[in-house]
Amino acid sequence: MTLTGTLLIGARDVPAGTHFLAVNPATGEQMEPAFACATQADVDAACRLAQQAFDPYRALSFADRAAFLEKIALCLIEDTDAIVARAGLETALPEGRLKGEMGRTVGQLRLFATLVRQGEWSEPRIDPAMPQRTPMPRADLRQRHIGVGPVAVFGASNFPLAFSVAGGDTVSALAAGCPVVCRAHPAHPGTGELVGRAIRRAVAACGLPEGVFSLLGGSGHEVGGWLVQHPAIMAVGFTGSYAGGMAISALAAKRAVPIPVFAEMGSINPVYLCPQAFAARTDTLASAFVNSLTMGVGQFCTNPGIVIAPAGDVFEAFVRLAATAIAMRDAGTMLTGGICTAYGQGVSILSACDGVTLVGQGQEVARPNCARAALFRTTAADFMRDPAMRHEIFGPVSLLVSYSSEAELHALTESLEGQLTITLQMDDGDMAHARALLPIFERKAGRILVNAWPTGVEVCHAMVHGGPFPATTDARTTSVGTGAISRFLRPVCYQDLPDALLPPELAYDNPLGLSRLVDGTMQTR
Amino acid sequence: MTLTGTLLIGARDVPAGTHFLAVNPATGEQMEPAFACATQADVDAACRLAQQAFDPYRALSFADRAAFLEKIALCLIEDTDAIVARAGLETALPEGRLKGEMGRTVGQLRLFATLVRQGEWSEPRIDPAMPQRTPMPRADLRQRHIGVGPVAVFGASNFPLAFSVAGGDTVSALAAGCPVVCRAHPAHPGTGELVGRAIRRAVAACGLPEGVFSLLGGSGHEVGGWLVQHPAIMAVGFTGSYAGGMAISALAAKRAVPIPVFAEMGSINPVYLCPQAFAARTDTLASAFVNSLTMGVGQFCTNPGIVIAPAGDVFEAFVRLAATAIAMRDAGTMLTGGICTAYGQGVSILSACDGVTLVGQGQEVARPNCARAALFRTTAADFMRDPAMRHEIFGPVSLLVSYSSEAELHALTESLEGQLTITLQMDDGDMAHARALLPIFERKAGRILVNAWPTGVEVCHAMVHGGPFPATTDARTTSVGTGAISRFLRPVCYQDLPDALLPPELAYDNPLGLSRLVDGTMQTR
Repeated sequence: MTLTGTLLIGARDVPAGTHFLAVNPATGEQMEPAFACATQADVDAACRLAQQAFDPYRALSFADRAAFLEKIALCLIEDTDAIVARAGLETALPEGRLKGEMGRTVGQLRLFATLVRQGEWSEPRIDPAMPQRTPMPRADLRQRHIGVGPVAVFGASNFPLAFSVAGGDTVSALAAGCPVVCRAHPAHPGTGELVGRAIRRAVAACGLPEGVFSLLGGSGHEVGGWLVQHPAIMAVGFTGSYAGGMAISALAAKRAVPIPVFAEMGSINPVYLCPQAFAARTDTLASAFVNSLTMGVGQFCTNPGIVIAPAGDVFEAFVRLAATAIAMRDAGTMLTGGICTAYGQGVSILSACDGVTLVGQGQEVARPNCARAALFRTTAADFMRDPAMRHEIFGPVSLLVSYSSEAELHALTESLEGQLTITLQMDDGDMAHARALLPIFERKAGRILVNAWPTGVEVCHAMVHGGPFPATTDARTTSVGTGAISRFLRPVCYQDLPDALLPPELAYDNPLGLSRLVDGTMQTR
Repeated sequence: MTLTGTLLIGARDVPAGTHFLAVNPATGEQMEPAFACATQADVDAACRLAQQAFDPYRALSFADRAAFLEKIALCLIEDTDAIVARAGLETALPEGRLKGEMGRTVGQLRLFATLVRQGEWSEPRIDPAMPQRTPMPRADLRQRHIGVGPVAVFGASNFPLAFSVAGGDTVSALAAGCPVVCRAHPAHPGTGELVGRAIRRAVAACGLPEGVFSLLGGSGHEVGGWLVQHPAIMAVGFTGSYAGGMAISALAAKRAVPIPVFAEMGSINPVYLCPQAFAARTDTLASAFVNSLTMGVGQFCTNPGIVIAPAGDVFEAFVRLAATAIAMRDAGTMLTGGICTAYGQGVSILSACDGVTLVGQGQEVARPNCARAALFRTTAADFMRDPAMRHEIFGPVSLLVSYSSEAELHALTESLEGQLTITLQMDDGDMAHARALLPIFERKAGRILVNAWPTGVEVCHAMVHGGPFPATTDARTTSVGTGAISRFLRPVCYQDLPDALLPPELAYDNPLGLSRLVDGTMQTR
């Protein structure tokens, strides 16, 4: 697998005038080859191809669309060794983790292939004509969902496979019938190119229009800006920072035709240690917490950034245990120099907040781009006074917050911003305590966990990886799991169309054998 | 039924310092009583009550929530005579139309009650635990949808019942478990108060928290602005002008916590007269078109504002027939003086466009606020040159556009903005012609009709009253039909929760007997 550094615009390899180099975060060294920075004309070319591909691509049968997703999975499997090797160099993530992530990426493609083939994602609804109804007859009305149009995808730095070029946003857009123009993440451009080439092979093998997929590189914000503002783009999927997500949302809202932006921007993922469980399991909770916090150098959107527990002797014991555990943790290489710098700044800001005390730190290491884990403590009263403590710091740092009454706990919880996850560590004796918190949690988070840790997001049907702002820009969706397809769908209603003009999912004889909502009742196949 | 002109803030009647009077558009005269203009403090009070009501209201059983919607329907029926009488004075709409609209409003409440009681709107999904799975066990994951929070509703001027205080937005928000703060339309404040009092009676009769519903009046834009910007409001439903919808969207996007705005802003609803049908049914098409155009003084979002047909003798005959038909139409009183003035301005702008010719007009009448129907013609080439022709003019005016080739027809269709509806008048011989247009229509419109007229929107399961921008601000939804509930819902995932903490729709023994998606397969009750 030789990297060329070119843009992948449909079937063409497009070199460019300006270039940038990938950096190995573990050494700080630049790596060959040079990667092309797309021009505005390149962005325009890719978006026009996507626009041209939209109608023929969405006209594919569900079976053919599913086969395409499965073909992408096969092409990725063929290239796994090369992809994992390059991703390791570009991200400093260990091989085992990257192989696992490749498995997840392939599994995700196959899950969506199954979803597409089943067909109920199109949500067919039929209200048959009632010609005899008085005072007015009812027309025959049929609804299905179709793709919104070409989708721009911005991958994440921290999941170079599962949330990047062939990640959840790309897969759910392709599943919805939408061509994808992907902006390659500049932190792993070689990984992006290899994955992009695998997708392109699948496009060609399935005989699809070349514009179904393009990959555009660039080192700054320009390419992304042009992409979001291109009239052919009808929706955006983004995973990354708050600043990035908000900048893209602002551009999307200012367009002549505004478009939806599904930005997953992270959160501090509060973990509640309920009184009974806290007292009964102080020791195991402390070690499990430090494991979750430092896993992957804390580089997860679902990292436990704040732990909330009752003040008192148990809290003091927990602090000591966690501090002892974190002191033994090695520093780990972060994904990029920029992320490492931002981590250091975030830790500095937190440590300067009134009422915040450092209680423990991991090992310091002199290697480049390494993050030293850190643990702070404060009180609920201080936390509520200073909004700075509510902001995510991407990396292995967490804030232990003690509260002194249930009323203060509820006020603290109400003061939280929107979250991807909220976790309860509880025993049977904590049931009433937990039940009182649950309605607030439901308003604040996309996922509520009991006796687990938030890191780890299952790709399945019931998952919600989303949540109220600022966790995401649209709380009504998820970016992981089959529900993610709905972000890129819109309903179309057909009134009194002759059977010959109806799409198969709505045709009179139900040739696809779908479950359809007929007059409000689900008629299963 | 005595009108007081007060605001309805929860259970309280709140008078205000400043007032405005309703106007009878048929006479231009002001009517008693004076209606209160809400202050910012009033808006705050209503929104806080809504926030307080959210958790207890959404905790109601589906049966109790459905009973509440049905109680609203009963309260409206009790007050029908008073409501219809006042609405007639405030809107100049005829009694028969208003009685029909009341029937639709009541039917809509009952349809949503049935939907809520059935329960599948919550879309329960269950992925059971797989403790033996390798390399990692799977947790038990369950998803349901809950309401987004308090919703601000801005009613429409042209449907004082079905799209106003107890209209589709209010009903779908209440069905979703969201309290509603409604901004009463200043064109029918008395109607709004009567309907609001009926809803309030239902709130009291069902023993619900008073904040489930409030009604705020005002004559300008201030009240709406405060409402959209209030932190307790989590979504907005709006039906009205492009300018109004865009102003509200801009305010919502600038909030510290941005919120979704579902604004239905209208469209020009193109009608395509396919060659065979056009030649075979020229006469009946012309008269049916003029009927649809002038119905309700053209004051429908789905009014046929543009008719597209092949140039030639048939087109000339159609123009003559339509001009003759429209010449016999009486002028009708519009909803407000402002709407009538805007109609006149819109017709002036259209008539001044290059290549646009007046071909027919309705009767002129000297009564106040009357709109004279008007018919213009142009060519596809001229239409595509001037974006001014693409803009909706609210009222009984339409533009007949002739094209000279299929290629020009397709280019014209691609040049259209997003629409609520696109209609095909076609015969069997037009099948290929229609089939070639259909993919473009699907990209451009929320509803596609064959051999019907777009005015008339059925409240059912398959309806889409929505469409790509600028028809609406969010093409992924509908504001009419049961699908409208999804605007105000968001998914929440529960991971490994003990059964005792799960909501009934997700509980292990399925006490509500719902159809649930289990491991990707629908398990029906």
